[in-house]
Amino acid sequence: MSGGGNTEYGRKRFQRSRAHFTDRITADGRDGWPVEAGRYRLVVSRACPWASRSLVSRRLLGLEDALSLAIADPIQDDRSWRFTLDPGDRDPVLGIRFLSEAYDRRETGYPGGVSVPAIVDVPSGRLVTNDYQRITLDLATEWTALHRDGAPDLYPKALRDEIDAVMADVYEDVNNGVYRAGFATGQAQYEEAYARLFRRLELLAERLAGQRYLVGDTITEADIRLFTTLVRFDAVYHGHFKCNRWKLTENRVLWAYVRDLHQTPGFGDTVDFDHIKRHYYQVHSGINPTGIVPLGPDLAGWAAPHHREELGGRPFGDGTPPGPVPEAERVPASGRP
Amino acid sequence: MSGGGNTEYGRKRFQRSRAHFTDRITADGRDGWPVEAGRYRLVVSRACPWASRSLVSRRLLGLEDALSLAIADPIQDDRSWRFTLDPGDRDPVLGIRFLSEAYDRRETGYPGGVSVPAIVDVPSGRLVTNDYQRITLDLATEWTALHRDGAPDLYPKALRDEIDAVMADVYEDVNNGVYRAGFATGQAQYEEAYARLFRRLELLAERLAGQRYLVGDTITEADIRLFTTLVRFDAVYHGHFKCNRWKLTENRVLWAYVRDLHQTPGFGDTVDFDHIKRHYYQVHSGINPTGIVPLGPDLAGWAAPHHREELGGRPFGDGTPPGPVPEAERVPASGRP
Repeated sequence: MSGGGNTEYGRKRFQRSRAHFTDRITADGRDGWPVEAGRYRLVVSRACPWASRSLVSRRLLGLEDALSLAIADPIQDDRSWRFTLDPGDRDPVLGIRFLSEAYDRRETGYPGGVSVPAIVDVPSGRLVTNDYQRITLDLATEWTALHRDGAPDLYPKALRDEIDAVMADVYEDVNNGVYRAGFATGQAQYEEAYARLFRRLELLAERLAGQRYLVGDTITEADIRLFTTLVRFDAVYHGHFKCNRWKLTENRVLWAYVRDLHQTPGFGDTVDFDHIKRHYYQVHSGINPTGIVPLGPDLAGWAAPHHREELGGRPFGDGTPPGPVPEAERVPASGRP
Repeated sequence: MSGGGNTEYGRKRFQRSRAHFTDRITADGRDGWPVEAGRYRLVVSRACPWASRSLVSRRLLGLEDALSLAIADPIQDDRSWRFTLDPGDRDPVLGIRFLSEAYDRRETGYPGGVSVPAIVDVPSGRLVTNDYQRITLDLATEWTALHRDGAPDLYPKALRDEIDAVMADVYEDVNNGVYRAGFATGQAQYEEAYARLFRRLELLAERLAGQRYLVGDTITEADIRLFTTLVRFDAVYHGHFKCNRWKLTENRVLWAYVRDLHQTPGFGDTVDFDHIKRHYYQVHSGINPTGIVPLGPDLAGWAAPHHREELGGRPFGDGTPPGPVPEAERVPASGRP
């Protein structure tokens, strides 16, 4: 997300657009897009929390070889997400300079915003889906034939009702709540979003005080979705979006929880704090006109012991942690704590 | 300070203006302004760190009856500081609506900015001084005949060299450093100010790890000047001015030091967090165009035990703490932690 057109930033309450392209890539190919190794390309920005969910899922499930990855520049221009990090400013697989080109091949003159995550069909160059709420669920449940050995079950059938309920609250108050606070155009809108955000965070902290993960005793989709917001909290939402009741570092439970995940293979190794900070502080000129990117916060604490293992839990259930990050996808030193 | 015209906010490095009106009120009256009970009126904004020094000094020295107080609205308009908190939007003693009127009576057509703290001669309505670096020193050393019984010596002769040296560093890197970071118009300017600020804060934390106060074993002018910046740190400088390496709450020594002072009569009882936050976030539209005032940070921690008394030290030396705040000057509940 974070696409220009997806961010309706007017006088009314901030509304996040629904994804427009909602075809699904499934095992049975019922929408015309069967799961197939090497056929699709996942386009993300490491800055974007919605796209970063799929980065984590892909790592945990070991889909790196089956589903290739394009990483957009964290700074969009007036044509939105672009491949200016690649040689010749062009994605080497899709051969395009702007993600919008894949949107155009799918629907000529589509008037909506260009958002990540997006999955593109490599042979045709057409966008398949930008459905940020669905993509990771399908990676977990439809792409199973291509999962690595030892891949965890991120959306276990027996717990789906509970996972869905937790994720619905987290979406409304936290994932999207920080944006409603940050993009508020009036004091009352901001205060309402702030109140809901911190009330929800307090409830989550209570829940996580006695259990290592949000649902059950293993990592699930619910943890991935909370993680991608929390990992950005002190670096951008606290100051830039005025979500400043406290920093995560001041909340014992949530700070330990997010560090536990960050230190788990597949989470922290997808996070680029440099991309995150430059994106928010340089793109949102309406709330940071100078474009100056803060040097803080000090990231030294991310590697400190979290002691969450004392709560029990089995991070990968009957599975195993993912292997090392492919060399070509390693986050540069500039983005790591 | 924080006066529009005193904040040169252009493309070059942020420069704080020197005070223009530097007459001194002295025991011998050599500038024509002798110390005299009831003759002068101190004009401040509780938002402004420079003005707040004089609020603390006046309390510690027990000058409330001798030197009356006018409190400006924390939100300036295009005529600068104004008395819109008073009945009829007029200061009841000076009879003026804007502080600029006292400037005009002193010098017609003065082209500079209108700043606080300012001391006005009540009989003539003329500004005497807006010399923020000098006013508190003179309260400590020239107004002694009017000090309360048990007033501390805030600028002891034997320690002046050391106090001056500490204050010079604190001024450059901290008091003014946060403004240089926050008003930077380029990344390099910001980063230089940030680096100096946090290097100085680390040095101050080292110094204060083993001693209760900055110089000697009692409260001095140096502590007052550091306090008025630190008390604003988490509430405004951390987010609004991007001084976000850490919050004070994350720095064990400085957080205990500033709470110790805040809990000392004469310090915290002058602080209005509501005025502070509204001023910075609503006046600086160049860095906060929405004018939204953050609800955070949570102020609950200000009253927590600081344990600094274990370091020894005698806050008031051979003197005593000041008495209660005069009823008319009590900070409203909206501004207290």
